[in-house]
Amino acid sequence: MSEEIARPDLTGQRVGFIGLGLMGKPMARALARAGAELVVTSRSPGPVAELAADGMIAATGPAAVAGQAGTIVLMLTDTVAVETVADALLPVLRPGHLVIDMGTTAVAASRALAERAAAAGAEWLDAPVSGGTVAAEAATLTIMAGGTDAAFARALPPLQAMGRRITHVGASGAGQIAKSANQVIVALTIGAVAEALALARAAGADPARVRDAIRGGFAESRILDLHGGRMVSGDFTPGGRVTTQVKDLRQAEELAQQSGIELPTLGLSLELFEMLVDQGDGALDHSALYRLFAR
Amino acid sequence: MSEEIARPDLTGQRVGFIGLGLMGKPMARALARAGAELVVTSRSPGPVAELAADGMIAATGPAAVAGQAGTIVLMLTDTVAVETVADALLPVLRPGHLVIDMGTTAVAASRALAERAAAAGAEWLDAPVSGGTVAAEAATLTIMAGGTDAAFARALPPLQAMGRRITHVGASGAGQIAKSANQVIVALTIGAVAEALALARAAGADPARVRDAIRGGFAESRILDLHGGRMVSGDFTPGGRVTTQVKDLRQAEELAQQSGIELPTLGLSLELFEMLVDQGDGALDHSALYRLFAR
Repeated sequence: MSEEIARPDLTGQRVGFIGLGLMGKPMARALARAGAELVVTSRSPGPVAELAADGMIAATGPAAVAGQAGTIVLMLTDTVAVETVADALLPVLRPGHLVIDMGTTAVAASRALAERAAAAGAEWLDAPVSGGTVAAEAATLTIMAGGTDAAFARALPPLQAMGRRITHVGASGAGQIAKSANQVIVALTIGAVAEALALARAAGADPARVRDAIRGGFAESRILDLHGGRMVSGDFTPGGRVTTQVKDLRQAEELAQQSGIELPTLGLSLELFEMLVDQGDGALDHSALYRLFAR
Repeated sequence: MSEEIARPDLTGQRVGFIGLGLMGKPMARALARAGAELVVTSRSPGPVAELAADGMIAATGPAAVAGQAGTIVLMLTDTVAVETVADALLPVLRPGHLVIDMGTTAVAASRALAERAAAAGAEWLDAPVSGGTVAAEAATLTIMAGGTDAAFARALPPLQAMGRRITHVGASGAGQIAKSANQVIVALTIGAVAEALALARAAGADPARVRDAIRGGFAESRILDLHGGRMVSGDFTPGGRVTTQVKDLRQAEELAQQSGIELPTLGLSLELFEMLVDQGDGALDHSALYRLFAR
């Protein structure tokens, strides 16, 4: 299925972009395609030079980005990286600055950073994404946003340049909560498909034909399609790595604990993915969970 | 999406049908709509009388059905019911008889019944279904078949009168294996969605908006759509009952044990659904698993 996506026109808008990794680089390019003038920086100089060669403005660091752009997108590895950048960014934030954190950051940290930004008169929107590098390159990311109505309204045009399904979930942290819920469903559904196909195989049926047979019924999911396909083909080239899944599940479990809720299957799923790391499969796609059961 | 379904013409074919419950009755009607002449029997006389009033032939029991029809469909509650009917049926089966068991029957029992039918020169196809009463009434069942190529080829026209997606998974028992795999995925995906939405709620977000935000991404599934919708609305009218889910998961766990495989999440899921029965929620839709976590 293809779908026409209404893209905004960002001509004349300056957008800062911090973090030009596998996700960040294609996202910055998508903003540029929409007409924005990009001011970019990243930990490693390679992608900065590459994007500068394409006409983007290279900045020396986070504070320099904030000096040249009112809207600043963060696409960083983890909560620690976001907090490190924030320490450089927050002292120079002024009223009118909008920071859009599109990485997967802990909910409590997101809320705290939004408060610190608000104290400087600036806005902080958490807007994590789903869809991986494929969706980043096609600018079809799913984006889940948390923050004030004003921050969301202002962020919407640049977000529309990078994503397709963009939802304002609620107040600060709500985007990160949605992302955690998303990761829990993805991990546990991979587990569901892995155990089911392993059962089929152990019981003497062909897992590929079993998968064909149940497609389109109540068992149908993106995971049965994509990750189930990897399980039956045995090709566990990532995609999403097992180690990333472990990191995301740990963050979800931390959120559960902080929220006073016990989630038994989440706990078990984390243990199983950790076993996969222990047996040396951490760099494989997370669908390799199948290998724990089907041998 | 709607889809044109090519229906077979069964005019002049006699089909026996044993078991006229919530599923069986609409399935028998679908066969009649395709032109088949139905010979029906069931444990309770009500539906037999009802279908006889519509022109179907009422038989006094399984053996009487076999005396009047070469192809016999079974749609019974469980393995014990199938074995009871088989005890009446097998002594009268002759070469040329084809029995199509469309209920959810244990794999080992299915294989044994197919062997006993073969000893009488008859064919036995396991062809369990997915989709529930809605799909039975629309004749859009997903059907997973196990048996010989000859049995499947002969069963295909009547199956096409009742279903949309029909797969010959493999030898006898393979249809039941696929059904078990299907049930494992359904149950565990319900668990995934339940824990994720409960996490979202406990962490302070609106589960309905979180569900909206993650639709269409990697978390997308029929379960997030249908059962996730029931969780956010709090309407747990079945649908598929918790008690049925427990029965199906016990059967899947039995199959896993017989197949020498350990499936930890399946075991945990069974425990959680059993807890739901213990707290008095057995008659609710299986999406009520959400109530274990979100209060």
